[in-house]
Amino acid sequence: MNLQEAIGRFRELGTKLQAYQHAMGILSFDGQTGAPKKSYEGRGLSLSILSGELYKQFINEETDELLNFLLENTKELDDVTRRSAEEARDEYDQTSKIPMGEFMEFMKLQNEASHVWESAKLGNDYESFAPYLEKLLETRKRFAGYRKPDQDPYDVYLDDFEKGYTASDYDRFFDTLRERLVPLIKEAIPAFRSTRTDFTELTYPVAAQKKLGEEVLDIMLLDRERFATAESEHPFTMGLNKNDVRFTTHYYEKMPFSALYSTIHEAGHATYELNTADELMYTGLDDGASLGFHESQSRFYENIVGRSREFISFLYPRMKEIFSEQLADVSAEELYLAVNKPAATFIRTEADELTYSLHIMVRYEIERMLFSGDIKVKDLPEAWNSKYHDYLGITPPDDTRGVLQDVHWSEGMFGYFPTYALGSALSSQLAASMAKSFDYKDDIAKGDLSRINSWMTENVHRHGKLLKPKEIVRFACNEDFNADYYCDYLISKFSV
Amino acid sequence: MNLQEAIGRFRELGTKLQAYQHAMGILSFDGQTGAPKKSYEGRGLSLSILSGELYKQFINEETDELLNFLLENTKELDDVTRRSAEEARDEYDQTSKIPMGEFMEFMKLQNEASHVWESAKLGNDYESFAPYLEKLLETRKRFAGYRKPDQDPYDVYLDDFEKGYTASDYDRFFDTLRERLVPLIKEAIPAFRSTRTDFTELTYPVAAQKKLGEEVLDIMLLDRERFATAESEHPFTMGLNKNDVRFTTHYYEKMPFSALYSTIHEAGHATYELNTADELMYTGLDDGASLGFHESQSRFYENIVGRSREFISFLYPRMKEIFSEQLADVSAEELYLAVNKPAATFIRTEADELTYSLHIMVRYEIERMLFSGDIKVKDLPEAWNSKYHDYLGITPPDDTRGVLQDVHWSEGMFGYFPTYALGSALSSQLAASMAKSFDYKDDIAKGDLSRINSWMTENVHRHGKLLKPKEIVRFACNEDFNADYYCDYLISKFSV
Repeated sequence: MNLQEAIGRFRELGTKLQAYQHAMGILSFDGQTGAPKKSYEGRGLSLSILSGELYKQFINEETDELLNFLLENTKELDDVTRRSAEEARDEYDQTSKIPMGEFMEFMKLQNEASHVWESAKLGNDYESFAPYLEKLLETRKRFAGYRKPDQDPYDVYLDDFEKGYTASDYDRFFDTLRERLVPLIKEAIPAFRSTRTDFTELTYPVAAQKKLGEEVLDIMLLDRERFATAESEHPFTMGLNKNDVRFTTHYYEKMPFSALYSTIHEAGHATYELNTADELMYTGLDDGASLGFHESQSRFYENIVGRSREFISFLYPRMKEIFSEQLADVSAEELYLAVNKPAATFIRTEADELTYSLHIMVRYEIERMLFSGDIKVKDLPEAWNSKYHDYLGITPPDDTRGVLQDVHWSEGMFGYFPTYALGSALSSQLAASMAKSFDYKDDIAKGDLSRINSWMTENVHRHGKLLKPKEIVRFACNEDFNADYYCDYLISKFSV
Repeated sequence: MNLQEAIGRFRELGTKLQAYQHAMGILSFDGQTGAPKKSYEGRGLSLSILSGELYKQFINEETDELLNFLLENTKELDDVTRRSAEEARDEYDQTSKIPMGEFMEFMKLQNEASHVWESAKLGNDYESFAPYLEKLLETRKRFAGYRKPDQDPYDVYLDDFEKGYTASDYDRFFDTLRERLVPLIKEAIPAFRSTRTDFTELTYPVAAQKKLGEEVLDIMLLDRERFATAESEHPFTMGLNKNDVRFTTHYYEKMPFSALYSTIHEAGHATYELNTADELMYTGLDDGASLGFHESQSRFYENIVGRSREFISFLYPRMKEIFSEQLADVSAEELYLAVNKPAATFIRTEADELTYSLHIMVRYEIERMLFSGDIKVKDLPEAWNSKYHDYLGITPPDDTRGVLQDVHWSEGMFGYFPTYALGSALSSQLAASMAKSFDYKDDIAKGDLSRINSWMTENVHRHGKLLKPKEIVRFACNEDFNADYYCDYLISKFSV
């Protein structure tokens, strides 16, 4: 096999794999949006067959040899092929180093655990879920040993979700947050207590909410020929390729700002996918650099743009037209304060911008202790509640609103949570770097996001996975990741 | 290999193939409904890769041997496995007997011809399309020779679309129509000329049309947990499996009855798919028995139910509520006459119930002559126009509204058209048989379709492809197919 042949075969494989992923993506998107209720079982069957076929196409001796051959010749490869081969090698190893039988067993366990977790959450019954969580954790630790026996198992999973980040990176990150944000929050919450929110409890008809949402998508300059929206129970974004990005919203008549900000959030994810470079199509690199970077974009548009005083001032006149009754006696400043009001609450997904990262910190610290053995699965509720008490000054009244609230652990996903906080922090650092080039707040005040989008595309979006997360930070900010930007931003926004 | 093993492997293969078809179906459904405009290319690539994979999974020596083994042991097979193996054998032979290179060439030709046809139709330029049609026809004839060298090529394709039907069946069928319907139409059209249609030209808001459509679906008793609807340019139905059926509608503000009757038509197709027997799932038999039978169901619900005086009388009060202004001075009888008014028109898809089959007859006669060599491709426009003149008394003003109007030939589909007329005729014969069991018109007048649906399920739907088209006619009607029922029905409805 010569190198040109190998590159050709590798491209062909990539295109074939993406066809399976494309089909499975659309099946899943359809399942969460337009599909009829009873289609569930048939779709599950098809998805499991197709994922088996995808596995066979990818995990085999031929691929193994092909990847080895390419990676022995990295100096002669162009950047895209090299990174793409590295990513493929990594994914190959993640899957192939686990004995098939154990992997199948784990899939079964995941499935069972998800069901048990659902009931446990409904019935506030942590004890029924604990044995499954125990097994999930034990399996994940064992799998990490198969894959990277020389590494700390928790680091293995942190790296899966955020290439290049280890527990020591995150420890430093969360130390900074703990030190600088906990005191801020303890001051800000009482200070905002009298913020007016009566008008957020009125009825806002869904049709009018949709109208506003559509206009915001135009303000964000999304290319309507390359994305489509739908409604689903939980909002999400799916990038099939850069010419086909989908995202969803869920409308609540009584929560007008829920759909607005989830639309901006998902549109932020979509903007990332829509602006990856053409040359990355079908290489597996036409996606966000990492979960954290993806979240940096959704949070940037949602919070730094969407919850800014400038954006609210810009949108306010139009909102007054669309919701003339509901906002009749509400000023722009009152609107701004209402969408930013910090509060100590139990549920992560409903948390405000200021307290959000502390919810994540709780989860990170617990995962860290679970992997180090400093805590047992049975002691999780206690640890959870005491951390909520320490950082937010509240104690969850039950495990449903406590340790059982998130789906991630029930699917055996450990190391995922910290990327949420990292993304928020990255968004602030990116904004600070952007501010050195031009006054982006002035652009927001004019409702003109074109320069902002161009800067993000040039510095982040276009690279996709071609650069690694830490490389993108350096490219975009001329320095390494630094959590102080995030703390500075929050302190400046929420200090009283 | 013992028989039990073979049956197991055959089932597994069937389930795997349906997973690919399921995925490709959803990709295509999505492409015609929610997908963004520029997603076209990526979807095309994925679909072509997946169809190649599907081909490889199905067309190989192992399948060939498996099918031969099963069909050597038909006496020991249950009915479902036997029919399923027969269908698979048939499909295998349809594909595998054509040399791969020639097949790929044909796919390319199809693709080019479709594009040329689109421009030719837009620009009224038959000459540019004629060489492609010539090649498509020549290829189809050649392929028929590879597949069934002893048969007339046209019969090969008639059988593809309607198992068991040959040109001699269709000749007899269309002879009857020509003899009995042409004179009727020549009388009916002038007689209906003064039928009031002014109110059909008013504006009917889409939201109100949708509301009516949803209520009609409830009247038709479709199980909302197993189907979903969407909007598309051209309405269609897609049955992924009996728990997941989709169909679409297209709304025109100025054509209120277009969406109503296309909804009923597609819901008729959907009802068929929804009511196939459970035991047929994943066997390839959980589909309509044939195109003609599928059309018999859509036409039955659209015309025999939906355009009946009884149904209009039942729906009239509700329509008056929903369209109170538009129908203010319209009586139920005027509504009934307006949705049934026969007229000589150029476009098949817009034809009324009475003239529809004559549009098909023109196409059948032309296909017949093309395959026999009695006519050359270059002479098609002339032949077309002269037949429209003979049967409907009109001459298309251009080829756009004449020989170029339909997509079928541009995709090399010959032998498809006659199933449309056959379906209409079958629907009348089924209705006549149903009438021997109970007074279905009385049920329609009450808006209660439960007995009608049960009869159709028992006699037609549940069998799927387990019985062949001619067997279903005998099962449901205790006699062979007979076109006189159709003529009787139309004569009784449209005689003046």
